Amino acid sequence: MKNLGILLSGRGSNFEAIAKHVGAGTIPNARLAVVISNQPDAGGLEIAKRLGLDALVISSKGKQREQHDREVVAALQQREVDLVCLAGYLRLLSPWFVQQFPRRILNIHPSLLPAFPGLEAQEQAFAYGVKVTGCTVHFVDEELDHGAIIVQKMVRVLDTDDEHTLAARILEQEHIAYSEAIGIVLADGYEIVGRRLVTKITAG
Amino acid sequence: MKNLGILLSGRGSNFEAIAKHVGAGTIPNARLAVVISNQPDAGGLEIAKRLGLDALVISSKGKQREQHDREVVAALQQREVDLVCLAGYLRLLSPWFVQQFPRRILNIHPSLLPAFPGLEAQEQAFAYGVKVTGCTVHFVDEELDHGAIIVQKMVRVLDTDDEHTLAARILEQEHIAYSEAIGIVLADGYEIVGRRLVTKITAG
Repeated sequence: MKNLGILLSGRGSNFEAIAKHVGAGTIPNARLAVVISNQPDAGGLEIAKRLGLDALVISSKGKQREQHDREVVAALQQREVDLVCLAGYLRLLSPWFVQQFPRRILNIHPSLLPAFPGLEAQEQAFAYGVKVTGCTVHFVDEELDHGAIIVQKMVRVLDTDDEHTLAARILEQEHIAYSEAIGIVLADGYEIVGRRLVTKITAG
Repeated sequence: MKNLGILLSGRGSNFEAIAKHVGAGTIPNARLAVVISNQPDAGGLEIAKRLGLDALVISSKGKQREQHDREVVAALQQREVDLVCLAGYLRLLSPWFVQQFPRRILNIHPSLLPAFPGLEAQEQAFAYGVKVTGCTVHFVDEELDHGAIIVQKMVRVLDTDDEHTLAARILEQEHIAYSEAIGIVLADGYEIVGRRLVTKITAG
């Protein structure tokens, strides 16, 4: 059994989708060990409690990044977390944090990276006038929205879209993509070549 | 009937695909008025001649950009070209050229712009490790690979791909995308909102 640790700051809709997939057994051998929010009022905490999960507030307010990161890492290590999943966690991780979980931190981003990194990616893509966008699950490294890509899902932009309808369809794909990516990482059947993640060919 | 002018520098596989679509009547009301190469030995010229088209070499060798552009624009205007299609034309157009055909110059690029602009986009995307890439047909403006997007087609990157197999599958989509974009532009049923191309809603 592998322990997932979720970090969030808001409503946690990606966390909720992961919890459903874990519950339905579609991410094999995974359990949700802990949900940590840096915001005391994050909606995701309520969902975690309703699901009977270990839900923790480690407030970032007034703390230096590294001090806060040390508290979060301690909580994750105490629960023997194997894989950290950022799910709307509105904090940059310090390089030190990243080094504690090498290739064991995932993030999801609502665009086809490397296009539209940073905040409000859906709005950026809509305003740019792309016809195809989507979402990306990637390993977290020390650069923003940069690590090796595990899964990308495509979403067409429709003539009838506005920023909100587009973001809603991207979110549907996020909910599928994140669990798929967790499954790939936990199954450990991949290797990283350069910065490409490729499935290992296993001899039958 | 609308007159298309093709500019190319190489084998002209996108030009050949456009010619097939024009021949098959899938781009209505279009005819190929002229094919111009800046390279005397471009393979695309042979295809143009085989198809009985007006095929022209306007060599760029040893010429200033604007001087060469003036010769090309004169040839296009003489043939009353309505829409200029760059099909592997390895020259940057001068701002003056672009201004002679406002929103009447198209280009195709082998990535989902704004990701991977510039040369060897397929190789860039492969090395970055994206799982989804594709091609983009866009209006040419005064910045490289930048104008409003008309059509994008998606191509999945497979574990079994190398740069060449990926580029080949992108090229298949280019051959579909370019004619689709020409059809949209010639039908004149769109408007540009900000930099988004959207289909006009026409009252029945």
